[in-house]
Amino acid sequence: MPQINDHYLKLKAGYLFPEIGRRVSAFTEANPEAAKNLIRCGIGDVTEPLPEACRNAMHAAIDDLGTRKDFHGYGPEQGYAFLREAIADNQFQKINISADEIFISDGAKCDTGNILDIFGPGNKIVITDPVYPVYVDTNVMAGNTGDSDEAGNYDGLLYLPCTAENDFVPAIPTGEKIDLIYLCYPNNPTGTTISREQLTAWVAFAKENDAIILYDAAYEAFIREDGVPHSIFEIDGARDCAIEFRSFSKNAGFTGVRCAYTIIPKSLTGKTVNDERQAIHPLWSRRQSTKFNGASYPIQRGAEAVFSDAGKKQVKNLVDHYMGNADLIRETCLKAGLTVYGGINSPYVWVACPDGIDSWAMFDKMLNELNVVVTPGSGFGAAGEGYFRISAFNTKENVEEVCRRISKSLSQ
Amino acid sequence: MPQINDHYLKLKAGYLFPEIGRRVSAFTEANPEAAKNLIRCGIGDVTEPLPEACRNAMHAAIDDLGTRKDFHGYGPEQGYAFLREAIADNQFQKINISADEIFISDGAKCDTGNILDIFGPGNKIVITDPVYPVYVDTNVMAGNTGDSDEAGNYDGLLYLPCTAENDFVPAIPTGEKIDLIYLCYPNNPTGTTISREQLTAWVAFAKENDAIILYDAAYEAFIREDGVPHSIFEIDGARDCAIEFRSFSKNAGFTGVRCAYTIIPKSLTGKTVNDERQAIHPLWSRRQSTKFNGASYPIQRGAEAVFSDAGKKQVKNLVDHYMGNADLIRETCLKAGLTVYGGINSPYVWVACPDGIDSWAMFDKMLNELNVVVTPGSGFGAAGEGYFRISAFNTKENVEEVCRRISKSLSQ
Repeated sequence: MPQINDHYLKLKAGYLFPEIGRRVSAFTEANPEAAKNLIRCGIGDVTEPLPEACRNAMHAAIDDLGTRKDFHGYGPEQGYAFLREAIADNQFQKINISADEIFISDGAKCDTGNILDIFGPGNKIVITDPVYPVYVDTNVMAGNTGDSDEAGNYDGLLYLPCTAENDFVPAIPTGEKIDLIYLCYPNNPTGTTISREQLTAWVAFAKENDAIILYDAAYEAFIREDGVPHSIFEIDGARDCAIEFRSFSKNAGFTGVRCAYTIIPKSLTGKTVNDERQAIHPLWSRRQSTKFNGASYPIQRGAEAVFSDAGKKQVKNLVDHYMGNADLIRETCLKAGLTVYGGINSPYVWVACPDGIDSWAMFDKMLNELNVVVTPGSGFGAAGEGYFRISAFNTKENVEEVCRRISKSLSQ
Repeated sequence: MPQINDHYLKLKAGYLFPEIGRRVSAFTEANPEAAKNLIRCGIGDVTEPLPEACRNAMHAAIDDLGTRKDFHGYGPEQGYAFLREAIADNQFQKINISADEIFISDGAKCDTGNILDIFGPGNKIVITDPVYPVYVDTNVMAGNTGDSDEAGNYDGLLYLPCTAENDFVPAIPTGEKIDLIYLCYPNNPTGTTISREQLTAWVAFAKENDAIILYDAAYEAFIREDGVPHSIFEIDGARDCAIEFRSFSKNAGFTGVRCAYTIIPKSLTGKTVNDERQAIHPLWSRRQSTKFNGASYPIQRGAEAVFSDAGKKQVKNLVDHYMGNADLIRETCLKAGLTVYGGINSPYVWVACPDGIDSWAMFDKMLNELNVVVTPGSGFGAAGEGYFRISAFNTKENVEEVCRRISKSLSQ
């Protein structure tokens, strides 16, 4: 009988979002009238129409597929040159990343999970806390952890708390051998950023320790303040110690369309069992060639249009829309006397629960009293306890209504 | 320093298609005039326009994304119900497979590779020879093999030869504990089929031995003869011992569009390290939820249209086109005195090399004398030596020209 991957049995049953779903359902059943006014600010999914430039490009690509002359069958597994080059030209020209270091895929979630395929066992892995759960779960699945404790922390991972005290940027660990480090900035879930100096220190640490930083920059388009790094490759030396994940999901509204990319510099190396240096780039290229067949042609054309003049304008409008929402949420929470983080360079506002209320109690209060669904901070890790996340991915009308309710009910 | 996955270093450098590319490039450089007449019948990529019904559905879905009302963000990771139900209703109604046993993805290549994520180490794995190289390479990557020998066979895999002597259906192994078995029918590369009786015997073997058959039915739409099974689930008992992979790539021309599906019955089980039975379905669902984010919404709408009245007609026309090509190739080869297999229920024609010529010599002869690119059988495994594959995925004009050249140059 086939042996299953027993590591899967260590996984919690997707605790966070199913539990939110359970509580929302129970509320809806008990309060059908109030449930009609429910506004969801939980999951970070976009709500606004796809940019016209992207839709036009996808329509044209579908028309291509209707002709024998412009039909596109199997594409390169690493992505079409037209898209890799558009990304390199528009986002990395000043940063010394070339088109063939950019791998197109169908999602940053897929890439951040699948990346573990090319790493071996025995690596010491660093996770921030709170954290995007996929980093943890995919390490559990890959057998890189032991069991979890009551707080939900897995044995074998090194958790670095990100709290108000350290500005949500983890302290650099000392005394431990470290191999892989997940960093996400602008951060999901806290919506906070890392400064150039802080990121420079992390890159220096990674270089000194021959570690690799897995840098999730899915939210970089929301950075509005000067000086906040958009890419880890803005930092000298990062080419030797970092992989970066990016996505069209949040800036261009591609959550249902599916297109993302991962940057692996050719100079990045790991080690073989014989302690020889081995380039990472060809390993990922081989992984994608063998276990992936390229992102959809019309979707890649849609992503390319993000970099057209019209596309840039439309994406900017989308980002402005969501960040306008974030401003409103931030200001309303501040006026209500709440302590607020994030939301300046990110569509997530991370709010400290009023005294003595824990994350789930605050979730229940927001649901029952305000009829607003948020995400309890503790769902993202032990250090998220005492916070809740409000997503600015919504219509203006919904956000205005949420803010009215916060002003009315939460003002202290 | 991060330990890489050393198993990747056991992989051959994608021997087959790069070597074909190298020889074609060398030929083109040396013979620029003749190269203008080159016709490629190597890789199995479709050439004909995407069905109008699919294009219309994709256009409409993209228009949906242009409105706030019909916008689709993150979809279910397992696929939209509209597509899962269309597949269940159209392809599995008589076979007792339900919509929630069908997982939508972006490709059968991805699924046949990723499926190993949910299985553990120590499984005895059976591969046919010749074989679609992805089955082998993904097992190497997962650490399920040792090194390869000179013939390219990996230690730890059990290879079952498929030759003219056994009608390209492997003999059922005796005396060995078997856990996972890859079968692909209609077969890539040989284009041959398995009879209901033969498949029934394999299912009985798998059930008796508590093994799981990974059944690749990507070419089922090309079956024309009555009585040839389209799905392993037509066989009683297969629900307890099989996973089936299917795709829209070849029937509906989705190689560049990307949509496929995998059927995992809820009754299918493996074992845990404690020798307890564990259902496979929730493991795959968890894998897809964590490491995948669903197939693109407009693409799933395009796939759904395959099952509309117009879509069915258009797909049938596509299949008829390619199978008309296959008929022509088969008949021409037979008239030329060649020994031919496949091509009746599959778009691949598997041709025995004329006496004394090996697969690569035949490849060179076809390239240099006929200016036709084929695939040497030995590239698919040791038992493929002495054969070459001609793909019927081409325009009618190209196939007619290939046939003229075969008649002229290969007639014996």
